[in-house]
Amino acid sequence: MRFHTRKWVKPEDLNANETLFGGTLLAWIDEEAALYSIIQLESKKVVTKYMSEINFMSTAKKGDIVEIGIEVIKFGHTSISLNCEVRNKMTHESIVTVDNIIMVNLDDNGNPKAHGKVKVEYVKDRLAKREKEES
Amino acid sequence: MRFHTRKWVKPEDLNANETLFGGTLLAWIDEEAALYSIIQLESKKVVTKYMSEINFMSTAKKGDIVEIGIEVIKFGHTSISLNCEVRNKMTHESIVTVDNIIMVNLDDNGNPKAHGKVKVEYVKDRLAKREKEES
Amino acid sequence: MRFHTRKWVKPEDLNANETLFGGTLLAWIDEEAALYSIIQLESKKVVTKYMSEINFMSTAKKGDIVEIGIEVIKFGHTSISLNCEVRNKMTHESIVTVDNIIMVNLDDNGNPKAHGKVKVEYVKDRLAKREKEES
Amino acid sequence: MRFHTRKWVKPEDLNANETLFGGTLLAWIDEEAALYSIIQLESKKVVTKYMSEINFMSTAKKGDIVEIGIEVIKFGHTSISLNCEVRNKMTHESIVTVDNIIMVNLDDNGNPKAHGKVKVEYVKDRLAKREKEES
Amino acid sequence: MRFHTRKWVKPEDLNANETLFGGTLLAWIDEEAALYSIIQLESKKVVTKYMSEINFMSTAKKGDIVEIGIEVIKFGHTSISLNCEVRNKMTHESIVTVDNIIMVNLDDNGNPKAHGKVKVEYVKDRLAKREKEES
Amino acid sequence: MRFHTRKWVKPEDLNANETLFGGTLLAWIDEEAALYSIIQLESKKVVTKYMSEINFMSTAKKGDIVEIGIEVIKFGHTSISLNCEVRNKMTHESIVTVDNIIMVNLDDNGNPKAHGKVKVEYVKDRLAKREKEES
Repeated sequence: MRFHTRKWVKPEDLNANETLFGGTLLAWIDEEAALYSIIQLESKKVVTKYMSEINFMSTAKKGDIVEIGIEVIKFGHTSISLNCEVRNKMTHESIVTVDNIIMVNLDDNGNPKAHGKVKVEYVKDRLAKREKEES
Repeated sequence: MRFHTRKWVKPEDLNANETLFGGTLLAWIDEEAALYSIIQLESKKVVTKYMSEINFMSTAKKGDIVEIGIEVIKFGHTSISLNCEVRNKMTHESIVTVDNIIMVNLDDNGNPKAHGKVKVEYVKDRLAKREKEES
Repeated sequence: MRFHTRKWVKPEDLNANETLFGGTLLAWIDEEAALYSIIQLESKKVVTKYMSEINFMSTAKKGDIVEIGIEVIKFGHTSISLNCEVRNKMTHESIVTVDNIIMVNLDDNGNPKAHGKVKVEYVKDRLAKREKEES
Repeated sequence: MRFHTRKWVKPEDLNANETLFGGTLLAWIDEEAALYSIIQLESKKVVTKYMSEINFMSTAKKGDIVEIGIEVIKFGHTSISLNCEVRNKMTHESIVTVDNIIMVNLDDNGNPKAHGKVKVEYVKDRLAKREKEES
Repeated sequence: MRFHTRKWVKPEDLNANETLFGGTLLAWIDEEAALYSIIQLESKKVVTKYMSEINFMSTAKKGDIVEIGIEVIKFGHTSISLNCEVRNKMTHESIVTVDNIIMVNLDDNGNPKAHGKVKVEYVKDRLAKREKEES
Repeated sequence: MRFHTRKWVKPEDLNANETLFGGTLLAWIDEEAALYSIIQLESKKVVTKYMSEINFMSTAKKGDIVEIGIEVIKFGHTSISLNCEVRNKMTHESIVTVDNIIMVNLDDNGNPKAHGKVKVEYVKDRLAKREKEES
């Protein structure tokens, strides 16, 4: 799993117990899933359809750094299934895991739309390919 | 199910597709589950331990009003299990449902702690009871 | 008075004295008045025109739960007058009261527009009525 | 009246009608009243006690600039009474006025405390005076 | 230099060390530079092009009041160059200074556009002039 | 340069021209510099001391994905110097670059403190090393 986005837990991210607010954590996961799908599907209109069960294994405190990892499980016809883990950057201990997040690609009317992707691609490879084609 | 908290979908709650950002919705659910548990357990130290799978059935747009309903499924020894639905206030159509949210009551050291509650109580009844006891 | 929306006082809602920031409280009241009017008037274009004097009777601290109650005072031709109370959920003590909030219904050009409502309606009754009419 | 703080109306400040959200405006007024009082009373523990009626005369749109003016009406024993106007920076037209905002100075236990001030002072004069006394 | 906008440092503005988050401070400077340019250039489409080096000389804590000063260095053909200082309101000590912020005026297509201004103007003078011309 | 943190440009991140607000971008850079330093220096008390000039080369729109890259230039005695680039994830075009950001390590009294680091370390190597030492 590749961990990209990192967050610095600040006072505004805490609940009233002074630990990381679960809702903020879920919002971070949803944003990361959305942007990962947008990159993979090369489509801007991607929405969250489903999240499998969520286990909160540990928490984080003010000043901690957490990082969010995403992995593709499956490319569907109009969807993509992701696996997500949020962990403490310093100890690599899990804070939360979500085994299956299904994101759906939509057309302009909001209906599911085939995305044509079947495997993970890297933007640098896409850019290199385009450059080659153009030369 | 009782629907209490209502939200007015404002520009800051939208994703880049101009529909309600899933992460914001999850944060609203988590906050409602937390405060419902705090009221029921009469304890300020309550944290989210688990959420069962989440189905996004429809979305909301800018200016829509959504309301969040919570129901107790079970009182555990140190926990409480909740059922949650978010729906469109105008049509009563479901936006999202979460069948089981487990919240855990903690002591000052962050360990699970018995809460002694076995059924739903209303604050107005508690207040009436206290008044009677004091008179 | 019916109390619906509940808020969990989190670090981001505090002023520099670590009590609930008055401005946040006023923003919560304004949002609740707006969404209550939108529901009652079945109109999305409703704006705040006037608030009568506001008394801050007590405050709230981090971790407290407050609930916001709204009641209709009067249905005007293009407006609706509301009464609002914010109270501590645990003790039912008042935090703030506003005796009169006037919300105005607008047309697409931003001019006052008759709303045709004369009494409080419940969405469930409206839905039942529509279902009956359609059957 | 002296207008100090200026705000640029951004998407996050709008209500669902795409005009400046009344609640945001009230939060801006409350913050300005608080910081003005903190400066005048040379005390960090100042809270909002009362706001007289509020008239929303016009609104603002995305990209507008508004400025907030404050004036002292009266120095009480433990309080200060302020007058506030928010206006459009480009046209000087009023958006909202609040004739009387009462802020109270508190001691460490949260009780009203005499502040000893009887007239408006400017920080630059205070600094000049201190410099002179020290020389 | 004229200091206008004032900010009350609240919990949401702090970093994990409980001092004013540098990023929040930079966002405040950028907003002030933008709105100052919008007022001077009488144009709503103004963007930040360049900031010279930024020295963080001191910080601020929760409850402090900071004020932001802006001064014009130069009117370019399509741009305006500003000088900015953020200081502690109570002591007038500098928190941060930025010697040169270049803001560019844009046309509807996002290209630089001449603004026709050569010196600082005050809105009250503009309004007086217009009134005179109209009479 | 390694690009980690990614951001999805949402309505709340826009300025009044509907492009990415410069202040938000600067706040993202400052947060990334802070958390990168915290990880490298294995110290939670790190503050921004200096940023060299900032060039805004292009902007981003709602729905775009940007990624933030950081590279160490130099390890000082009590400080670390970083180089930062923010680019569009889809095209790898630069949005902004900052050649030199100096972060300082502090002791509990807020004075500069030697951090003892001289080269970039990876958390996975640190964890492997600790495991080996403990076995």
